[in-house]
Order: sequence, then structure tokens, then C-alpha cells
Amino acid sequence: MTDDIGAFVPGPRVRIEGRPGGPLGSLTFAAKDLFDVAGVVTGGGNHDWPTGRPVPTRHAWAVQTLLDAGATLIGKTITDEVSLGILGENAFDGTPVNVRAPGRVPGGSSSGSAAAVAAGICDTALGTDTGGSVRVPSSFCGLHGIRPTHGRIDVTGMLPQAPTSDTTGWFARDAETFARVSSVMLGEAIPAELPTKLIVAVDAFGFADADVAAALQPMVKRLAALVGTSREEIMAPQGLSVWARAQRSLQPHEAYNTFREWLDKGNPRFAFSVARGLVMGSMIPESERAWANLMRQEARGRLAYLLTPGTILCLPTTPFPALLRGLPLSVLDPLRDRITCLCAHGGLAGFPQVNLPGATTVDGLPVGLSILGARGSDATLVAVARALGKS
Amino acid sequence: MTDDIGAFVPGPRVRIEGRPGGPLGSLTFAAKDLFDVAGVVTGGGNHDWPTGRPVPTRHAWAVQTLLDAGATLIGKTITDEVSLGILGENAFDGTPVNVRAPGRVPGGSSSGSAAAVAAGICDTALGTDTGGSVRVPSSFCGLHGIRPTHGRIDVTGMLPQAPTSDTTGWFARDAETFARVSSVMLGEAIPAELPTKLIVAVDAFGFADADVAAALQPMVKRLAALVGTSREEIMAPQGLSVWARAQRSLQPHEAYNTFREWLDKGNPRFAFSVARGLVMGSMIPESERAWANLMRQEARGRLAYLLTPGTILCLPTTPFPALLRGLPLSVLDPLRDRITCLCAHGGLAGFPQVNLPGATTVDGLPVGLSILGARGSDATLVAVARALGKS
Repeated sequence: MTDDIGAFVPGPRVRIEGRPGGPLGSLTFAAKDLFDVAGVVTGGGNHDWPTGRPVPTRHAWAVQTLLDAGATLIGKTITDEVSLGILGENAFDGTPVNVRAPGRVPGGSSSGSAAAVAAGICDTALGTDTGGSVRVPSSFCGLHGIRPTHGRIDVTGMLPQAPTSDTTGWFARDAETFARVSSVMLGEAIPAELPTKLIVAVDAFGFADADVAAALQPMVKRLAALVGTSREEIMAPQGLSVWARAQRSLQPHEAYNTFREWLDKGNPRFAFSVARGLVMGSMIPESERAWANLMRQEARGRLAYLLTPGTILCLPTTPFPALLRGLPLSVLDPLRDRITCLCAHGGLAGFPQVNLPGATTVDGLPVGLSILGARGSDATLVAVARALGKS
Repeated sequence: MTDDIGAFVPGPRVRIEGRPGGPLGSLTFAAKDLFDVAGVVTGGGNHDWPTGRPVPTRHAWAVQTLLDAGATLIGKTITDEVSLGILGENAFDGTPVNVRAPGRVPGGSSSGSAAAVAAGICDTALGTDTGGSVRVPSSFCGLHGIRPTHGRIDVTGMLPQAPTSDTTGWFARDAETFARVSSVMLGEAIPAELPTKLIVAVDAFGFADADVAAALQPMVKRLAALVGTSREEIMAPQGLSVWARAQRSLQPHEAYNTFREWLDKGNPRFAFSVARGLVMGSMIPESERAWANLMRQEARGRLAYLLTPGTILCLPTTPFPALLRGLPLSVLDPLRDRITCLCAHGGLAGFPQVNLPGATTVDGLPVGLSILGARGSDATLVAVARALGKS
């Protein structure tokens, strides 16, 4: 390629040097095209999104934070339309190349950010995770990635989707870079102390493809050895599919409310699947949402019960590795719903989660192991990733 | 304008001379971009429609018929996306200018065909009418337009939407041109004999805006004088809104079935409103469609009872003149449903209908009077239009 970055960025090229002398001084980063960069149109992954909106005059908080820490912005990356999608295929801006799984999707919605880091275009990249949008591409592209504790990271200048689930996350190839960036973003040092108890979520491992569960076993063993003790537990006694159902009742409705004025006044173009999701979101009965909110409370209660300080839980990030590109919706829809079963807890409960790369299926495709911790234990999860990277 | 046709055509320019010596030898025509023209991509009003489809090698029947009769094709015209719409606003190809109602929509889905004829770009133009797509733009642009008897005109090479309602229609500014083109398309002479009985559909006039009903009164009087006798009748004893409900249960479901394989494999982009219609079409319960089919039989029976040979029925084509461009969906949706109340009988029953131009509201906006006849009486309706044009 004459221009390596072209496969990952949707629009105008942008480069902003980081502040000299910061802790991330040697690093480059990209920002998902949901984050404002002053003077650059926020594309949002949909060609009708920018219409009638002012060009941002300020950087998003996350962009400013990385620039202030010395990292250099090298581009804005392709995203699923207004973050609605977890596969990474965008009918407007194209599908970023997944160098770790040729011919397959990168995962979304932070598709370009993950794919660019995986390809070595930059050292780290900003993404967002509402229903899995950092976790899924981390798993599919073989990266470290974090969905922080909900509400912890300032989302100013980030295009919202479903605010009660939206988070800002980031990716890195290696554990050391991941720790450096995480320390800046979290505003705290990555501790030396590690958790002492590991829970293996047997329901989640049982739900993943058998070859994925098998591929992750060596990492689970290393993790158990690192932490010291491990035990098996059911993560979601009510059912992973029941948690997923609750999330699918809350998130699309909230997303519809976020975008309804735009839909009404702009009648924007969307890929059919994206519009379909918004229409379905508009039609979820109040009774279903009321139930879903109760189940959300149950999920929060369950994870708070399991994840006491010093305890982390591990599960497969996705039930399978990256899917082939261009599959029909009738094939994708049930597969997407299976992914949601392993991701719903994030949006429902808001606990922090880190994807650990390293495992591959027998076909050589990356697949991630996730660790989940108590609210606010983000830095501890990063510490585990760093320690595992050295072990 | 340096290029008058630009406001009405979506893509590549095309011109095909008519066969010399035919009955339409001096005329020019345009074809809605749902009709195949050999060697030209059929755009369908949606930029993802042509993907993966072969370029047509034959003209659609309607195009071939006009060329054989000597008319010269001067372009393919903008249409609502795959004919799904009756307002004429297209997010991909733009909204054709309605010279008769500046700042307002042309009506759709045969928007470019109607607008081009109204603007004098061509003498006649091919459209399609499933749920009102010739009738509405005829009314909004002040044109003669026909929705022929369903099943009468060969639809080979025409992009289908809902086959049990789809028809091929055409437009003209003046009654004489309309009669010449109609004679060719219908394959029969336009008779001298006129109907002898006129029914005034009081429910339909009552449903239209009061100023529209008032604006049409002089034409109704001229029509009554031409025909000889007139009487008032309720067209839809079950309710215009009930007929509309039946049509809205049948047509969108049929349209969804027409396009479902494309949606599944291509996940194409649509304006939100178009995708929403397809999603709603996919979700209509079988019980609702079963009822709608029974109501369709009732509507057919009612119109067959009213429209015996020698009798025509008149009604306002649309309840109001052309709407302003760019209205929000929340404003448009109920207005579109009102239009459907005056158009549903076409798709439900398949009886021929001709829009008669000439009336305008106090604001100077065109609004059409429609005449409806027995199945197969298309030429008689054209004869009435011609006689009225001379009267």
C-alpha cells in the first residue's frame, strides 16, 4: 500500500502533535470518528451525520488527555454508523482490514481503531463501548482493550449512543503500552499488587464455541497461577440470554431516543440493519423496558456479589473469532445475538473489563480472554494484563 | 440553468431516437429509473440497488413501445427509492424541482417523470403506480396522469415493488398529447363515446381539505355537464381509512417480500423512512393480512357495483396540494397516511384512474381531480380527459 492509513480512516487526514515531554511522548494514537477533534468534522460513520452540525472547536476530553500526555494523533478511524454495530462493516466508509484475520471483519463498532492498532499504524487508539464495541474488536483483532467502569471516564466530546451504557475505551498491542496509556486515561498509577482470587465463569465458557473455550484454557491457567486461587461460578444465574434480552430492550430504546430528533428532521440514510435496529428500538414496550431495568439491577447485584475487592472473573470475550466479511443478515443476526450474550453484562452493570490477547484458534484466528473486576478496579485489571504480559 | 434536465435525472445521460414515422414521431419522453433501458444501469433511486446486477440488455416493454411508436427517449428520471414513497424526496438523487409549486415536493414515487413533464423537459414520461406513485405527482405537478387497469400493461423490465398492486403509468401536460400516448400504450383508439353517468364520491370530497374540495368544484361541474348526469355516493362504505389500513397491511408486506433477499444479502443503505417502511412491512401479522385481503375483496366488490359500463366516479386525487420540501417525518407521516386514504382503492381494487389537471388552490398550487372507471375502461377515461380539455 502506498498509504497504509487509508484502510482505517474514513475522511480527511489529520495529525496533531502531542505536547512535548509527556509520559506518552513516543506514542501515536488514533481516535474513533465519534470523538471530536477541533477543526475536523466528526463523521460518526454515517455520511448524513455531519449535515447541519458545526465543526467542533474543542477536542474531546479523551483526545485532549492523550495529546496533553504527549501522544500524537495520526488520524480518525472508521466506526460502525453512530456506533450501532459490533461487527465493523460500514456501508459508507468501508470495512477496516483485520490484519490478524484476513478476509474477516475487525469487529465493531470501534473497528478502525482496533484494526489500525493491530496493523501497527499507531500504538494506541480510542474507542467506545456501549454493548461490546471495544471488547469485540479487541477479541477479533488480538489486542489489549478496556471497557472502563461506566461513568469513570469523561465523555465530553464523544458522540453518545445509550448514555447509561456508553464508555470510552482504548486499545494497544502490547501490555506495557496498554499500561502506560491506561495510567494516563485513568489518572492513576497501575498498581503492583494483583488480585488474589480468580472466578472462572463456567456459563460463559460453556456458551462459547468449544474450540474457543479450549483455546483460552492455557491463558486461564496462567491467570490462575498469577492470581493464586481460582474457582468456578455461574456469572449469570438468570441466564446469559436473559441478561442479553434485558440489554437488547434497554440499549436500542435509549439509542433511538438519542437519535430520534435527527431521524425525524434529517431522515438520514443508514444501512438497512442499522435502521432496522433503530426502528426496533422505537417499538420496545414500556413493560418490557421496566422488566429489563429490574434485570439490570439483578445483574449489578450478582456481579457486585461475585466481584469483591481482590477478586476478578474471567470469561471468553466473544463466543467465536472474527466472522467472515459480507455474510448475509440472516446469518449474522443470530451470531450477533450470541456475541451479545457474552457482552451484555458490560452495558447492564458497568463493571470494568479488559480483554487479554494471546490465544488463537486452531485456524490461527485471535480470540480474547476477558477479565472483569469490581467497579473502580480498572487499574488492577490493567495490572493483571501487564503481569500476564511479563509472565 | 445551463442544463435543464439535470434537476430531474439521477445518473448517466441517455438519448435514444424513436423509430421514424411512428404515431408519436414528434414527441420526447423520459422513463422513471425503474424501467430498463438497454445498456444503461437501472438505478432504482437507491445507490446500492445496481450493485451486483447486470446492465439490462433489453428495453422494458413500456420503453420499447414508446420508441417503436416514434417517441424519443431523452432521459431516465429520479424516483423514490425502489418506488417506496409518495412524496418525491430522495436522499440519494435529490428532490426534482416542481415548477408548478416552487419550494414544494413534486410527489412520488414517479417524481422526476412528473416534474420533467411539468417543466417542459419532455412531452410525456413513464411512471409506476403501486400506492399512488403516478396519481400523487400528477396532482402535485398539475398533469394528466394515468394509473391503468392493474394487469393490463406489460410490466416486463420494470422494477417491481408489490406485484398485486404495481402498474405502469404515464404523464402529459395537455390532453391531446395524453390521448396520443395513451392510445399507443393501451393499444386501442381513444373512443369518441363518453360515459353517461358521473358519481361524485362524497366521502372522498369530505376527506379532502375544504379548500381543495372547493377548488375542484368547477371541474366537477364541467365533468357533470360533459357526462350528462351525476349523483353523489359514498365510495368506501367501510371507510376510506379502513381501505387505507388494508392497503397498508398488504403493500408493505408484499414490498418486503420483493426486496427481502436484497436486504439480507446486500444490507443496502436507505433513507430512514424507507427502511422503516420495510421493517414495518416485515412485521405485519398474518392475521392482519388475512383481514386485509378480505377487505380488498370488499373494495373490489364495491367499485364493481358502482362502476358499471358508462359510469365514472370522481374524487380528489390528493387531500391537499404539494407539501413543502424537507418537513420532518413526524409531520409527514400523518399527511402521507391521509394521502393513502384517497389512493388505497387503486392498489386494492386495480380499477383504472386518470388525474385531470386544471384546478388550483387559492395559493395557486395545482390539485387534481381523478376519474375512476370500470376495469378495462382506460381509454374511456382518456376520452373524458380529452373532451374536458376541449370543453
